[in-house]
Amino acid sequence: MTTSSTRGQRNAEKVHIEDAFWNPLMELVRKTVIPYQWEALNDLIPDAEPSYAIRNFRVAAGLEEGEFGGMIFQDSDVAKWLEAAGYSLANHPDPELERTADGVIELIAQAQHENGYLNTYFTIREPGKQWTNLHEAHELYCAGHMMEAAVAYYEATGKRKLLDVMCKFADYIGTVFGTEPGKLRGYDGHQEIELALVKLYQATGEDRFLKLAQFFIDQRGTEPNFLVEECKRREGYSHWAQKKVPIPSVEQLSYNQAHKPVREQDAAVGHAVRAVYMYTAMADLARLTGDRELLEACRRLWSNTTTKQMYITGGIGSTHHGEAFSFDYDLPNDTVYAETCASIGLIFFARRMLLLEPRSEYADVMERALYNNVIGSMSQDGKHYFYVNPLEVWPKASEHNPGRRHVKPVRQKWFGCSCCPPNVARLLSSLNSYIYTASAEENKIYAHLFIGSEAQFGLAAGQVALKQQSRLPWEGYARFEFTEAPSEPFALALRIPSWSLNQAVMRINGVTAHYDVEQGYAVVNRQWVPGDIVEWEPALEARLIAAHPEIRVNAGKAAFERGPLVYCLEETDNGRPLASLSIERSAELRSGYDADLLGGAVTIEAQGRADEHDSWDAAAPYRPLIQQQASEPVTLKAVPYYLWGNRETGEMTVWIRTCS
Amino acid sequence: MTTSSTRGQRNAEKVHIEDAFWNPLMELVRKTVIPYQWEALNDLIPDAEPSYAIRNFRVAAGLEEGEFGGMIFQDSDVAKWLEAAGYSLANHPDPELERTADGVIELIAQAQHENGYLNTYFTIREPGKQWTNLHEAHELYCAGHMMEAAVAYYEATGKRKLLDVMCKFADYIGTVFGTEPGKLRGYDGHQEIELALVKLYQATGEDRFLKLAQFFIDQRGTEPNFLVEECKRREGYSHWAQKKVPIPSVEQLSYNQAHKPVREQDAAVGHAVRAVYMYTAMADLARLTGDRELLEACRRLWSNTTTKQMYITGGIGSTHHGEAFSFDYDLPNDTVYAETCASIGLIFFARRMLLLEPRSEYADVMERALYNNVIGSMSQDGKHYFYVNPLEVWPKASEHNPGRRHVKPVRQKWFGCSCCPPNVARLLSSLNSYIYTASAEENKIYAHLFIGSEAQFGLAAGQVALKQQSRLPWEGYARFEFTEAPSEPFALALRIPSWSLNQAVMRINGVTAHYDVEQGYAVVNRQWVPGDIVEWEPALEARLIAAHPEIRVNAGKAAFERGPLVYCLEETDNGRPLASLSIERSAELRSGYDADLLGGAVTIEAQGRADEHDSWDAAAPYRPLIQQQASEPVTLKAVPYYLWGNRETGEMTVWIRTCS
Repeated sequence: MTTSSTRGQRNAEKVHIEDAFWNPLMELVRKTVIPYQWEALNDLIPDAEPSYAIRNFRVAAGLEEGEFGGMIFQDSDVAKWLEAAGYSLANHPDPELERTADGVIELIAQAQHENGYLNTYFTIREPGKQWTNLHEAHELYCAGHMMEAAVAYYEATGKRKLLDVMCKFADYIGTVFGTEPGKLRGYDGHQEIELALVKLYQATGEDRFLKLAQFFIDQRGTEPNFLVEECKRREGYSHWAQKKVPIPSVEQLSYNQAHKPVREQDAAVGHAVRAVYMYTAMADLARLTGDRELLEACRRLWSNTTTKQMYITGGIGSTHHGEAFSFDYDLPNDTVYAETCASIGLIFFARRMLLLEPRSEYADVMERALYNNVIGSMSQDGKHYFYVNPLEVWPKASEHNPGRRHVKPVRQKWFGCSCCPPNVARLLSSLNSYIYTASAEENKIYAHLFIGSEAQFGLAAGQVALKQQSRLPWEGYARFEFTEAPSEPFALALRIPSWSLNQAVMRINGVTAHYDVEQGYAVVNRQWVPGDIVEWEPALEARLIAAHPEIRVNAGKAAFERGPLVYCLEETDNGRPLASLSIERSAELRSGYDADLLGGAVTIEAQGRADEHDSWDAAAPYRPLIQQQASEPVTLKAVPYYLWGNRETGEMTVWIRTCS
Repeated sequence: MTTSSTRGQRNAEKVHIEDAFWNPLMELVRKTVIPYQWEALNDLIPDAEPSYAIRNFRVAAGLEEGEFGGMIFQDSDVAKWLEAAGYSLANHPDPELERTADGVIELIAQAQHENGYLNTYFTIREPGKQWTNLHEAHELYCAGHMMEAAVAYYEATGKRKLLDVMCKFADYIGTVFGTEPGKLRGYDGHQEIELALVKLYQATGEDRFLKLAQFFIDQRGTEPNFLVEECKRREGYSHWAQKKVPIPSVEQLSYNQAHKPVREQDAAVGHAVRAVYMYTAMADLARLTGDRELLEACRRLWSNTTTKQMYITGGIGSTHHGEAFSFDYDLPNDTVYAETCASIGLIFFARRMLLLEPRSEYADVMERALYNNVIGSMSQDGKHYFYVNPLEVWPKASEHNPGRRHVKPVRQKWFGCSCCPPNVARLLSSLNSYIYTASAEENKIYAHLFIGSEAQFGLAAGQVALKQQSRLPWEGYARFEFTEAPSEPFALALRIPSWSLNQAVMRINGVTAHYDVEQGYAVVNRQWVPGDIVEWEPALEARLIAAHPEIRVNAGKAAFERGPLVYCLEETDNGRPLASLSIERSAELRSGYDADLLGGAVTIEAQGRADEHDSWDAAAPYRPLIQQQASEPVTLKAVPYYLWGNRETGEMTVWIRTCS
């Protein structure tokens, strides 16, 4: 294996966000979400399902008597919280939070076994059963999340305690898994450790962690299938069923993306979060090892995921059965899954693809998922979350049709399986790492997201400091100022957002500038000097969007988009049933900023039509169609999707019927 | 309790069907379905799931060693087969079939316990556990079906053997259930015995059977809730879960329509088949006892079921979770249930409402369910069946989206739970009893369905013989000839079908005749003489139908109807995706008889439009809407819904987008 950590893109060295749109969300995470989640992990939230997560560590550490509580992967919630806390501390020192985090890390260290093993479920509930149910038990998954937390906390604070704990655990895992005789040629049912080991490698420079990641990726889906064989060794005993179940077929392991070797996989299948976490690690490995076959697999899986199985909101996963992908173009709006965590994983994948090869399509999807599915999952108060992010809601159906019970019309306090809220927290706390990448060798800085920030880059040409100001998502305007620049030329590459339809004007120091277009980026390579100002104006207009004709559910419909934001109609603005509304294809869309709407947002109004109801006899479910559609003009009002469900509970739809 | 068996309507005395449309279907039942089902009951069909039904009786009768096989209610399949055989023998003597049936009846008699008890599951698998799980075990349900078989067989052949067996069982049941001290104040989780006891009463004239039916109806849903208390006595043990489960709440018993007393029920809830079987018995009792409160409940439940929870095909039950109703106007076309048995039950209910009070709306719904959902469930070869009858099918989704796996794009051979095929057989074999009712006192004959037949009626005025010829469903023409008429006047009431939009011409002996309209019937009261001919021409035209705006899924769509038939588009005629097609609201609909289509049928063609696909980049799931819809003219071809799925497997839809 050739490791080459200097290949391709790297992150900016240091990015600090200062942005009118994002700072309030990040502050919400820092001031409310992280403290609230801390209370949740400690079972201090009245009326919410208890987490047991911290208590499990206390019990495993021998500090408290008790049973294991919560999901078998409950440890990962603590890890995700710690990871978010680490990012938050990197952005914003907070001695109290740091003290709390140090205390948790102390507790985690106490729960670690002498040999490095760490997992409260197996410590408390099933000692001796370690590594006997990789298929279901999330053992390496929990390890992976704790590794991510260790790296984030180390990078934020310089404190090595958790990093050492997790390196020790990783080394122990390396004694258990591998191709050598006597080791398990296995991998986790839920991918996560693969990407985490890459992070551990990057934080420590220790090749063995990268090699272990590659082992897990290489092993997955090979014959004889480890998960099938393992299940046979357990005689089919299932943790989830709490009884013996039929041995799964290799085909059924598509749920775990273990039905065939990863390099042979073409289509996104199975549990969506597992899939994108795996793709993320694959892209990492493709970049760090130069593995061409892995790169091709990443490209194929990216393409399938984002062009055939992605909602317009950046949601993925069309069915709640297995929280899974279904198949190409099957994107039901009402029985949708589109789990928050899956979109976050898609953002991880996108970022790794950008590091691998800067193409604007990766950033386009990253932005789409971020501005819509992900931030829409959190309430304005930071204390309520959607796990499922529907594109069409009829509250009565959520209540009375069991096939839609997973679709909640209102954000929930906390979940028994509470993977999503801490995942949102860690993503938003680390948002600064998604804005830029840079290639030191090529002397090129890429701006993927337009988020106000200060960033520093170490290029071969020298050190660069760049200040971005952005009016997104409300206006198509960003301003970049170089506050430090080397005496050698270097390139600035600004993403031409897909929503601008390639209409994007660049001005340098007030003068319209020509730029080259490379893989969707506007590139200017020149000698920059401190004080140089680049203004960037991608056309940002409200538009009606159509879906590919193979997406059957959206035939004859359109969605409102404005820049990176997808919009929706809510009952509170438009009455009900929303299905009675339609929009003229040529309707003029009027955008206006409404300062009173949930912290301020641009809304879109347009002329539409409402089918008339008055002539209907309540006793006639069906009647002859009236040749001239009887409808009356109405003004439709669309609000950003990410804000839906923050006012009165009611119907919501992203897709609206069009009329001529 | 006042019993008054002469109230209201009665069936015609004898009706023999002779009809170009229905005879082939009835012959299919007689020559193929009944023999095929006999083989199925005897596990003689290769590759089909075994039934075990006959073997269970042999084991219970002590003729064979073995375990119980199949569903806990497997006995009912034998009963339904026998019932169908009975009807078939009434229409068409068949010594071999009769010998077979006699043999089964002999077997059943041998499986009966000394005290009258009869149920192979409890005899073989759980002796001693009788009447301990009314909630789940279908014990009285199976009894009910066998009572229906007994009555049908007795009426067809005059043989009392099975009737005696079931009267004995009914009497035994009467010793177990009742309000007297020491008896169970219970009822079955799956209604059926209630309507069966009414039939037993009608066949025998024994009031005690009617009273037992009324006991079950009266008891249902009263406090303390029997099913809840029974579940407590079992400490929550569930047959289906094979373990203890939480004691259900009274609210959860809405699944069994036992959440409140039946007279207080307003909306169709829970398992659809159970619901309509219960409503059928309620309507019987309302008629036979003059119970006004029960009548009002029937009217409310009829109205809710048929105006707010019925598909255009006459299907009911919107969700496969519990094979149940969901709530008003929730009629998804793709995740639909619309079980065949439920529509059959709806037909039972409609017929009982017609006996109670002749209103054409009951017959309209009866016809709708019969011509669409019910006969569409059976393949042209009589050997394959739909259990679920969808209004929209995307075969890939049935395969790859677990939420649609219950929707089969192809009729299945037989089912582990094979309630539907024998139910179709017994309905079609007894179709003659659905055509007419008559009121002897009022000297009035009602024709509800237009099916060629010869019928006799005993009116107060005297004996009437009536010959109907019909060109339905292809043409709006029926011809009635009196071949026997008394010397007193009497009335003929012909249903004015809802699909005729009240445009129906009557000619008597070639001369256009005036008629009175009473509750949707064209009534002529006069002195008829043998040879009088009434021609009846309800306007039968292909039309586009719209759905009530509250039925959100059908907003902006239309369905083709022509007379009693609902039509659909199939991929084999129209390409795919069908969602790309739309029809102009003012499109001319061209009907034509296609003799080559699956035995001959009228198809409908119309000008439509197909969204263009060619300009779509496969890599773009979403793009800006083109203001002028790019579409090309196409000829849409619709075929009767009941014929769908008999050619190449592909997409199907009943509802089509409209365009201006």
